Amino acid sequence: MADFSAIDKYIDTHLEDSIAELARLCAQPSVSAQGLGITECAELVASLLRRRGFTVEVIATHGNPVVYAEAEGASDKTLLFYNHYDVQPPEPLELWDSPPWQLTRRDGKLYARGVGDDKGHIECRLSALDAVKAVTGSYPCRIKFVIEGEEETSSVNLESFVVNHAEKLKADACVWEFGGVSHEGKPEQYLGLRGICYVELSVQTASQDAHSGLGGSIFANAAWRLVWALNTLKDQSEHIRIPGFYDGIKPPSARDMELLAALPDDSEDHKRRYGLKGFLKGLTGGVELRRETVFVPTCTICGFTSGYQGPGSKTVLPARASAKVDFRLVPGQDPLDILAKLRQHLEAEGFSDVEVNYLGGERPGRTDPDDPFVKLTIEAAREAYGSEVVIVPMVGGSGPNHVFLDTLKVPIVSAGVGYPGGQAHAPNENIVIDNFLTGTKHTARIIEKMKEL
Amino acid sequence: MADFSAIDKYIDTHLEDSIAELARLCAQPSVSAQGLGITECAELVASLLRRRGFTVEVIATHGNPVVYAEAEGASDKTLLFYNHYDVQPPEPLELWDSPPWQLTRRDGKLYARGVGDDKGHIECRLSALDAVKAVTGSYPCRIKFVIEGEEETSSVNLESFVVNHAEKLKADACVWEFGGVSHEGKPEQYLGLRGICYVELSVQTASQDAHSGLGGSIFANAAWRLVWALNTLKDQSEHIRIPGFYDGIKPPSARDMELLAALPDDSEDHKRRYGLKGFLKGLTGGVELRRETVFVPTCTICGFTSGYQGPGSKTVLPARASAKVDFRLVPGQDPLDILAKLRQHLEAEGFSDVEVNYLGGERPGRTDPDDPFVKLTIEAAREAYGSEVVIVPMVGGSGPNHVFLDTLKVPIVSAGVGYPGGQAHAPNENIVIDNFLTGTKHTARIIEKMKEL
Repeated sequence: MADFSAIDKYIDTHLEDSIAELARLCAQPSVSAQGLGITECAELVASLLRRRGFTVEVIATHGNPVVYAEAEGASDKTLLFYNHYDVQPPEPLELWDSPPWQLTRRDGKLYARGVGDDKGHIECRLSALDAVKAVTGSYPCRIKFVIEGEEETSSVNLESFVVNHAEKLKADACVWEFGGVSHEGKPEQYLGLRGICYVELSVQTASQDAHSGLGGSIFANAAWRLVWALNTLKDQSEHIRIPGFYDGIKPPSARDMELLAALPDDSEDHKRRYGLKGFLKGLTGGVELRRETVFVPTCTICGFTSGYQGPGSKTVLPARASAKVDFRLVPGQDPLDILAKLRQHLEAEGFSDVEVNYLGGERPGRTDPDDPFVKLTIEAAREAYGSEVVIVPMVGGSGPNHVFLDTLKVPIVSAGVGYPGGQAHAPNENIVIDNFLTGTKHTARIIEKMKEL
Repeated sequence: MADFSAIDKYIDTHLEDSIAELARLCAQPSVSAQGLGITECAELVASLLRRRGFTVEVIATHGNPVVYAEAEGASDKTLLFYNHYDVQPPEPLELWDSPPWQLTRRDGKLYARGVGDDKGHIECRLSALDAVKAVTGSYPCRIKFVIEGEEETSSVNLESFVVNHAEKLKADACVWEFGGVSHEGKPEQYLGLRGICYVELSVQTASQDAHSGLGGSIFANAAWRLVWALNTLKDQSEHIRIPGFYDGIKPPSARDMELLAALPDDSEDHKRRYGLKGFLKGLTGGVELRRETVFVPTCTICGFTSGYQGPGSKTVLPARASAKVDFRLVPGQDPLDILAKLRQHLEAEGFSDVEVNYLGGERPGRTDPDDPFVKLTIEAAREAYGSEVVIVPMVGGSGPNHVFLDTLKVPIVSAGVGYPGGQAHAPNENIVIDNFLTGTKHTARIIEKMKEL
């Protein structure tokens, strides 16, 4: 058993070094959506790893390069960290209280674009590794980093990267890019993400808009075609009408339901925050609401547009209409299968004029709550935070965790510096310095305990 | 029988005076949508009428003032001209080939904002009155003008103006604000406008948008609510599903069908111009297509908006959605009745969360094709244009003609300087000088023939 009090002390006493390094990382813009500072940031991250003795490659993809790093350790176990060096655009700039590219300390917090998502997590992991090595003399296991540069633009090249480098990336366990504490400050452990199939449906019925007085009775109307097509996708009881949509779904296990039942009830918080009168299907809260939130697939209209949308009236018959639709998928479903079924359904319903443009997808991905690495991580969190851990078997959102799960067959856990007030993707993105320290201590424990896995 | 050759000659030889006066009218901006130059233009129009001996009142309304003018004539008949002094905004300015507020002569045409819609028609009528009076020594009948300042913003105060001043406005016949020639240069006579009921449907399901991964299965989605509500309004066979919608409709008469049958076939022109593959309901052209175009009521989605509409994907669950919908109405229907039925229908279908905002309406309005004043006008057109007249019993668009028809019980005809290339409401609005001359000669004949009515 390692001397965690010495490791914790090292982390505490080197806090200013960590913050200085994080400030350098945050000072380097790296906006993947705008192509800003990408190469420079990849090189900066590579240099931080090289300085620590890692063998580093900056590997080209069809998009932004991936920083891959590897260092030997005392055991034959391998721990893989997945992170990203790209960030969201900082706009709107006028809503920031301090410059987005300048790490600013205020009231026990650190503010900058990317400080939480995801540069603070990179720094947290580097600081944890430094502490473990300083105290024990070496890394307890082989350490690998995959730090990509396209997470904020849907990780479009990540899957082929992982598949093509599967041998190189081989590991026993993986720590995901994020993690942290709940509203009440309790450590949270996320174990699954729903999948997603995101499409744009569009219709064009004419080469230009017409006056509604002319064409109203005799011209096809793109807006009407789209409304009728959308209407065939889901009925008012929320049942998705695409044939085969629900095929093969794996329902939550008894253990999943037990974990859901143990989660705090956030139904009142949702109602207050979103001004809701209630929930769909007569749900009021409790485990049934939580099950519906994450273990049921969805069909959400994320937006639609057609014709005149300004103030007052304009009597126009629109030639074009389009809608963005996402399907959240649960274990047993696959985005490309859903896409094919959607296309078949629209064709069968007489909507061959509705074009389906696939804008991207992710498969659902889960880690077994009873995996030994999950148990190790939870035990480490209990020690670092001095608190029970909130275990979330599945969240409603989506991400590329399935890429690692399916290709590398590794369990994936979350650990880090996040908290609900972190303003990720928004102005005044921030982390709490105390959360940085505890997240780093938690990470150091995961690293150190790897040899026991 | 008046000496029309002398009247025509007067109109020809005084063309430059007419153009100079029209240039003054066009130099005065009068954009009702922007509140620009309204009072000044009303006063300018009043001064042009006073100079001709008219008794003029500039009458305040809840909106822009109406210029009302009256002059005595040799008979006890009364002819009422309806016009408007307001114009559309000139924007986008960069698309004009000459300044919008400066009447510019080019290739036999006159260019300016409002030159066709509707200042050229005001000038046409003034020039026709001048010619008749110069040649015959007096007006042959009492002449009245109602020149409003809100036609381009839906004439919202016109109905109450006409109702409140019904006695003052009493007339035997009315000439509408527009008129002119067809694509082939033949004079056209419009005898009816469909009605309209224009509404905005909106839904708000929450106080703010949510992440689709959070709310997709449990939060009501405004975009879905709107799609489902719209879907209940009309089915894919174009049948409008609001109970009672078709009640009381007066089908076209045998005479209407005869007039429709005599109209030129513009189906190929529509297909080419709008890039259409065909028409709804299997129609291909001929009288059945024309009947469907104007004698059948419609439900048109003019536009809708909700959630994310930018490039790529954003996983958002929208809190708000809205659609603009217009119903074109045929004789026997009434916009307020349709509005009430729409509200009742949505309520009955379970959409009490869909707010219906009435943005305005017009009743359908028609003049009998066999009315003596219509015959007089058609005969006058035959003489002035030396061509057969295209009689259009009903057009698909809408306007406030019902206000005069229902309150004053006058027949309404069209006569004027318009043509299909006039770019009304668009940059480079224009009239053809030859059309101005012929339209003025036509108008002079209508005036002169009033004593025979």
